[in-house]
Amino acid sequence: MAIVTMFSVPQRSVMQTPAFFISRDSGDSLVEQIVTAVANRIDDKLLRTGARMPSIRQFADEQSVSRFTVVEAYDRLVAKGYLESRRGAGFFVRERASMLNPSPATPLLIPGTQQLDVVWLVRNMFRQLPPQKMPGSGVLPHDWLDGELVANGLRAISRLNQNLLLHYGTQQGFLPLRQQLQLKLAELEIAAAPEQIVMTSGVTQALDLVAREFTQPGDTIFVDDPAWFLMFGSFAILGAKVIGIPRLHDGPDVAKLAELAAIHKPKLYIINSVMHNPTSTSLSAAKAFQVLKTAEQHDFMIVEDDIYCDMHPGPAVQPATRISALDQLSRVIYLGGFSKTLAANLRVGFIATSPELAVRLADRKMLSTLTTTEIGERVVYKILSEGHFRKHVDRIRVKLDSVRDDITKRLEQLGMKVDYRTPAGMFLWTETGTDTNRLTEKAMEQGFLLAPGSLFSPHQTPSTKMRINIAAMSDPGVWEFLKKELR
Amino acid sequence: MAIVTMFSVPQRSVMQTPAFFISRDSGDSLVEQIVTAVANRIDDKLLRTGARMPSIRQFADEQSVSRFTVVEAYDRLVAKGYLESRRGAGFFVRERASMLNPSPATPLLIPGTQQLDVVWLVRNMFRQLPPQKMPGSGVLPHDWLDGELVANGLRAISRLNQNLLLHYGTQQGFLPLRQQLQLKLAELEIAAAPEQIVMTSGVTQALDLVAREFTQPGDTIFVDDPAWFLMFGSFAILGAKVIGIPRLHDGPDVAKLAELAAIHKPKLYIINSVMHNPTSTSLSAAKAFQVLKTAEQHDFMIVEDDIYCDMHPGPAVQPATRISALDQLSRVIYLGGFSKTLAANLRVGFIATSPELAVRLADRKMLSTLTTTEIGERVVYKILSEGHFRKHVDRIRVKLDSVRDDITKRLEQLGMKVDYRTPAGMFLWTETGTDTNRLTEKAMEQGFLLAPGSLFSPHQTPSTKMRINIAAMSDPGVWEFLKKELR
Repeated sequence: MAIVTMFSVPQRSVMQTPAFFISRDSGDSLVEQIVTAVANRIDDKLLRTGARMPSIRQFADEQSVSRFTVVEAYDRLVAKGYLESRRGAGFFVRERASMLNPSPATPLLIPGTQQLDVVWLVRNMFRQLPPQKMPGSGVLPHDWLDGELVANGLRAISRLNQNLLLHYGTQQGFLPLRQQLQLKLAELEIAAAPEQIVMTSGVTQALDLVAREFTQPGDTIFVDDPAWFLMFGSFAILGAKVIGIPRLHDGPDVAKLAELAAIHKPKLYIINSVMHNPTSTSLSAAKAFQVLKTAEQHDFMIVEDDIYCDMHPGPAVQPATRISALDQLSRVIYLGGFSKTLAANLRVGFIATSPELAVRLADRKMLSTLTTTEIGERVVYKILSEGHFRKHVDRIRVKLDSVRDDITKRLEQLGMKVDYRTPAGMFLWTETGTDTNRLTEKAMEQGFLLAPGSLFSPHQTPSTKMRINIAAMSDPGVWEFLKKELR
Repeated sequence: MAIVTMFSVPQRSVMQTPAFFISRDSGDSLVEQIVTAVANRIDDKLLRTGARMPSIRQFADEQSVSRFTVVEAYDRLVAKGYLESRRGAGFFVRERASMLNPSPATPLLIPGTQQLDVVWLVRNMFRQLPPQKMPGSGVLPHDWLDGELVANGLRAISRLNQNLLLHYGTQQGFLPLRQQLQLKLAELEIAAAPEQIVMTSGVTQALDLVAREFTQPGDTIFVDDPAWFLMFGSFAILGAKVIGIPRLHDGPDVAKLAELAAIHKPKLYIINSVMHNPTSTSLSAAKAFQVLKTAEQHDFMIVEDDIYCDMHPGPAVQPATRISALDQLSRVIYLGGFSKTLAANLRVGFIATSPELAVRLADRKMLSTLTTTEIGERVVYKILSEGHFRKHVDRIRVKLDSVRDDITKRLEQLGMKVDYRTPAGMFLWTETGTDTNRLTEKAMEQGFLLAPGSLFSPHQTPSTKMRINIAAMSDPGVWEFLKKELR
């Protein structure tokens, strides 16, 4: 039964007419009701800025609620910006006008008239568009991932000894996770003790740390062409010269690699050996060997970015050789992470390298961002160590396999050509026959995000290529758009 | 009642003698018992490397357990590195020798013979010493913080729409938290709309981003002298020249600041205006004005690192003026965070600056580490918006106040002098009358971590000063050590 208390308001109080009601069975707590009632009065200007609120005791007595309830309600009103607490003087209605002006709405997509560039796509990738509107996205849609797995991990961590949550993590990252990664790398024939592994805030931080360790402004970094666009920006901001090595169906053009290495004397070559973004191709054993030999001859380091590792179905389906497996982390630095398969928001990536370099890169990480968050690392550890991860990535691969051929066929029916027709991965690298910058601008006007070929070019050369995320092609509007534009 | 199943082992199976037992009421799940039993057999070499495990069906039928149980157990054994799954061929006992060699144990403290430097203290700060052994620590011990608050936040987040956990956060960070920070800054008379705030991975990342935005190798950065040691390393690694401005009881020596600015033409001046680390002093209004005027005259930016903001008891107890409040984020960049008051492991810090610079720094952040983790940001949001934060930091201040005078008196009885005797903060900046590098090396031998004055000097000048964390002085051994060494 409802017990309704009418607020009686004494002469001196600011709680003036109209009186408000608290219901003890409205479903809202007393605290919430007081917060709402006071906030509404302030919003409606019934309580003026600077007015003094009744003391906690006075409010509690007058309204027949506990002082605890009033303290709680006032605190929330302070946190929400309605009241301010002046030490020793009580609570006052605060000035809200200047700071609560709504901030100008960010446009959903930045207008197409401006030049497409790396920063443009990066910004748009992180807008909150529905995933089915983003065939250009680099991540799987929500419903392809497993939020329950991550939520369970967080719940388990919240039940741990809570002291574990309070302080910094350790310099190289959560040791049990590094031990799990040792096992994971051993499956790829890469031997890495836990002290050779440094946890990072995703592969992005790993690349930033390695590039800062090995290059000075003016130095050259080789990348694949095409390759992941974000790193072009990361390296450009360091003052590095970025040069692309043409990517073929089984790895880089090694003749070109040797020729360009002789000219430019690069410090680093960043490569996706397996499940290359955007082509979904992988390195043949011969190519892996040749790349490593070229690196030795011209004395540059190889950074093997294996973020798509778990999308790979095994060598029986697609041959794939990791250069790290040949070299055993001497000239090759291996990078991995869980943003593509578990949850980008955990921000868990890692570097595997020689013990000496691991210490140097961990020092460098500490000086840039201190430790990484052990919370995310404990979630990943739990998922790996309990055996959920393998099943989860198996399911993702099965699901990708179930749509790849159909999407390829439908794209071909629109006149597009799929390069390399690989039997695995989440990306198709397509030839559209039209300028994909222009196509992307048109798509933007309709609220779709595409990934034009120019973005994957180290020099942003306009292109007729386009990357398609096969997990994000479920929206009929995308197909209608492509049909209309490509006919 | 116990139902005990004896594993019967057919000829062809690898599950050879001695047979093992599964108990249905041992407290361990069937899965756990199978995992333990198989793992023990492998550890004991009863199952040899390369041996094929029974198929899931065979194992389940033989042992009268469900196939689901066996799948689960095999998956965990794979995750633990005992088995490997070969696609289409089944499960095999894997080679473990090479990779399971225990890694060499890291020594608890790096030997005292090597020169003390920034990297040394940073590494030792992140070793897992008991907090009462670390009077040199820069954070509060576990029991001064509130693990329950953070754990509750994680639990609440795990109950959200799980899709929120899966993807990247947004470019500038979780909007509702930035709105809360707008309110928090307004209380400090700093007007910052949410689009002027960029979330970072702690103040450390904020400093790294700002320094990379404003300096080239060879440029000069001013810091306080003494000041937070980690940033000396961060700036040195960027190739910046770091110069210290002497810190007095009410802020920097402004005559010296003007003189050095004319000579060195710095790009940035990093300052703790409030609750300066390590002296716990704060800026007077006059000093704040003079610093800002000097910055205008010599055209450098001020970076106001306000990480100890919430340790400040209010201007009635200690006058304190933030330069950001005078300047309103035009020439001053404001930094804040929650590593000192909530939990360092959340990695939540922020930059407040002009709208234009906010966009540039957010772009720069994306190119270094992509987005920050929305998980930590949502936890902080919940704690702020529900009004818990103010009460929590009030409690910390009361507790610090309850020990400060007593610890000061006891240090003085040992012949130490406490500079500035400020009425607030967690640090005392002390004069020991002895070389504190030497003192720190001796303390190390006994397993204590001290913070010698040299670390807070931009040039690591040996010093008789030492920073004391008053929350970490509960161990009698620390007092005995100091008594013995300082007599």
